[in-house]
Amino acid sequence: MTNINRQWVLSKRPHGMVGVDNFEYKETPIPTPGEGEVLVRNTHLSFDPTQRGWMEDAESYLPPVGIGEVMRAGSVGEVVESNDERFKPGDAVQTLGGWQDYVVASPAGGALGLTKIPDGIEPTMLLSVLGVTGQTGYWGMLDLGQPKAGETVLVSGAAGATGSIAGQIARIKGCRVVGIAGGPQKCAWLTEQARFDAVIDYKSDDVDARIKELCPNKVDIFFDNVGGDILQAALNHINMNARVVLCGGISGYNATEPVPGPTNLMNLVINRARMEGFIVIDYMDRAAQAVGELIGWVKSGDIVYQEDIQEGFENIPDTLNRLFTGRNVGKQLLKL
Amino acid sequence: MTNINRQWVLSKRPHGMVGVDNFEYKETPIPTPGEGEVLVRNTHLSFDPTQRGWMEDAESYLPPVGIGEVMRAGSVGEVVESNDERFKPGDAVQTLGGWQDYVVASPAGGALGLTKIPDGIEPTMLLSVLGVTGQTGYWGMLDLGQPKAGETVLVSGAAGATGSIAGQIARIKGCRVVGIAGGPQKCAWLTEQARFDAVIDYKSDDVDARIKELCPNKVDIFFDNVGGDILQAALNHINMNARVVLCGGISGYNATEPVPGPTNLMNLVINRARMEGFIVIDYMDRAAQAVGELIGWVKSGDIVYQEDIQEGFENIPDTLNRLFTGRNVGKQLLKL
Repeated sequence: MTNINRQWVLSKRPHGMVGVDNFEYKETPIPTPGEGEVLVRNTHLSFDPTQRGWMEDAESYLPPVGIGEVMRAGSVGEVVESNDERFKPGDAVQTLGGWQDYVVASPAGGALGLTKIPDGIEPTMLLSVLGVTGQTGYWGMLDLGQPKAGETVLVSGAAGATGSIAGQIARIKGCRVVGIAGGPQKCAWLTEQARFDAVIDYKSDDVDARIKELCPNKVDIFFDNVGGDILQAALNHINMNARVVLCGGISGYNATEPVPGPTNLMNLVINRARMEGFIVIDYMDRAAQAVGELIGWVKSGDIVYQEDIQEGFENIPDTLNRLFTGRNVGKQLLKL
Repeated sequence: MTNINRQWVLSKRPHGMVGVDNFEYKETPIPTPGEGEVLVRNTHLSFDPTQRGWMEDAESYLPPVGIGEVMRAGSVGEVVESNDERFKPGDAVQTLGGWQDYVVASPAGGALGLTKIPDGIEPTMLLSVLGVTGQTGYWGMLDLGQPKAGETVLVSGAAGATGSIAGQIARIKGCRVVGIAGGPQKCAWLTEQARFDAVIDYKSDDVDARIKELCPNKVDIFFDNVGGDILQAALNHINMNARVVLCGGISGYNATEPVPGPTNLMNLVINRARMEGFIVIDYMDRAAQAVGELIGWVKSGDIVYQEDIQEGFENIPDTLNRLFTGRNVGKQLLKL
């Protein structure tokens, strides 16, 4: 192996839509693991809408990525060199490897540090259905949404890596599940493969009118990944004691101006409804429960998932942009 | 007594600020109570921001007041004639008497029907500190806000009939309480009489900057009666696991166009915070608990309250408008 570690570093904070010019290509020597550390070669990178937030110089649930720092990203890879007896060269691992070929990870870093991928599990599953996005769907739906059989559940960003899991869990729990997604391909996958009861194509449908039509008993749980107009439309149709699970607001992540919130928050009052945010990091100590149950549902066929695997180191920055232009089909990954 | 029942009926639904011209004066004969019914002469009317919503032809938690119908309002009064053995002429009672001298009420109507006022209780207290507004402050703060000693609680509309009770209960529970109100008179009452820890005058202060300054440990509970810019400012300073109690949104009640919501709802996500609405009607079966505890706090001096008692049947419509122009000082009532 050559001694080159390819990297994409954050070179300029984005104003508006994130793009290739926010990053700079760099080559550095492959790092050497110190005492107790492990050298990992990334094989797959995870792309997540929340990464857009990490690029802002603003207070959030994780510190911003610094200018000149390697762009933060979840990854799976292979151990190359290990100074920790629990990890051996060749082991498949999951870490926060960032946009680079090699990373030095520390098993002491906890859930965000380094974890071994069990035998028999396809490594990319740890970034998709079993990963942060799948677990986000799991905890958001079960812990905040608290679905009860017979309820109506509406999911935005429904074909995405989180929304698709959230919606299928609600279906498993006996709910009527309606998804909102963009374009016929995603919509067909939702009804045909993920077995959503109905779907709304926000690119061609009148979302408000379709929610009303498809949710005759109103919406008990709205699992929102999008915000903006779609949140507003959903709030028009919430039921008494509805739960609005605020998972994300991708429609506003690349806005240059603050995006006005819904004008109809008083519907939360009239309907004694709750809107609640969460971050999956808080559930990391219970990850085994989520992963265990998700594996079971994947094996039984109750949950299906899609991975959109791009290739090529040079395509990394543009692959992030795919999330915000709706080009991804399922969980966005890139194979190195 | 003459046989005239003076009434103000809703003549025209408001578009924008409610005013005198939305109502029409009418005289009808005093009604006769039927079997099991009671004739009540209203002595005091209650004015509440929520009445503005009852005037809209829109789905809400109560049906709209119809055009030509007597304007709905809480009231206290005196029994004049009774066909129910539990009520005797002269008894002080509370009912939903509306904007008129006399009303036929039915004890079978439940909490919104007719209830006797216990001896030793000033009747107007049943419209103010012990009434719907006081109980709203009680349940909103305790059931949704769940204040813990040492937390910081921010209240908008803090000098109002609900906000002042909510804030004082948080103070009783050991919280640091900061109020937002309009004008030096209300602000002085809050710190000097209601013993709030600090106060923000939204008419003269930079609300966002002052929240930051006065809540160095951030806001654990925001009890909101106002909405709009004040909600937005408060969301900028919420703490982890904050509770935003959506009680009302008076800033938007008279708007002619939909008022944009806060641009910073993602702060609910980052801070794993909750925003929740409620309607006090849902707590009516537990009213005895709230009233009992509130009476105790009033007697012990832990809770103070203000009543703004206008007079004159002709002034009823304008008295409602006082709420929306901030002219009221404490609970708005009118003595007939």
